Amino acid sequence: MSILTRQQRCFLERHRVARLATVDPMSRPHLVPICFVLSADDVYTSVDQKPKRDPGRALQRVRNIVANPAVALSVDTYDEDWSRLGWVMLRGRGEVLESGSEHDRAQALLGARYPQYGTMSIGRLPVIVLRIERAISWGRLD
Amino acid sequence: MSILTRQQRCFLERHRVARLATVDPMSRPHLVPICFVLSADDVYTSVDQKPKRDPGRALQRVRNIVANPAVALSVDTYDEDWSRLGWVMLRGRGEVLESGSEHDRAQALLGARYPQYGTMSIGRLPVIVLRIERAISWGRLD
Repeated sequence: MSILTRQQRCFLERHRVARLATVDPMSRPHLVPICFVLSADDVYTSVDQKPKRDPGRALQRVRNIVANPAVALSVDTYDEDWSRLGWVMLRGRGEVLESGSEHDRAQALLGARYPQYGTMSIGRLPVIVLRIERAISWGRLD
Repeated sequence: MSILTRQQRCFLERHRVARLATVDPMSRPHLVPICFVLSADDVYTSVDQKPKRDPGRALQRVRNIVANPAVALSVDTYDEDWSRLGWVMLRGRGEVLESGSEHDRAQALLGARYPQYGTMSIGRLPVIVLRIERAISWGRLD
């Protein structure tokens, strides 16, 4: 029995980008767009190595999750016809997977979903997993 | 002298939807898509009255900000051509404006930016303002 409804699951699977929110040790939120893949009641995202303007900041999401595993993720549809707005927010526990079978499976799923990863050799990069504990949705998910 | 670069400002102004992250009293992030308007170094969003599945949850962002004013907001562009990805994250202090001249001006700016509000009489609804303290951006903002 999944935490997600069928509609929430389909909505998440139709979207290519989500936003991941974490909380830093000073209780301030941090927010980044992510590519993701949903598998059962877990969401995976790779920590990529794209050049950041400030390399020290690249992994803030990881540092935050290690100190405080509470994370939220949202996917939404915007349309100028506001009767068509919809969103899903997932809340749960984040973990950082550095290696292992779940890590490898997650990177394979991400690689399959995003052909763009093909040239980036993400296989050895860490994965963030969100263990979904709760899903909230609003508006049109169809 | 603004906190935002000209490019960051233009990027924000070109987008119609952002995501607002707040933190609840248990240090868990909360995340919702919002309509917004940028004015100088403030971002305004209205607390609307659309029916929520659980009315008690509708104002969690407000309850969170009152207890902990640290907020983050992000705007991003997704494209299957990953050389075209871009995002801006704003961090700062949130406040809830219930009335007064800044509140009224914010609602007027929101009404001007979003004709959809025309039929919704938002004028008396609270406004959340994000006082921008820091802006981080990555990728293509043009």
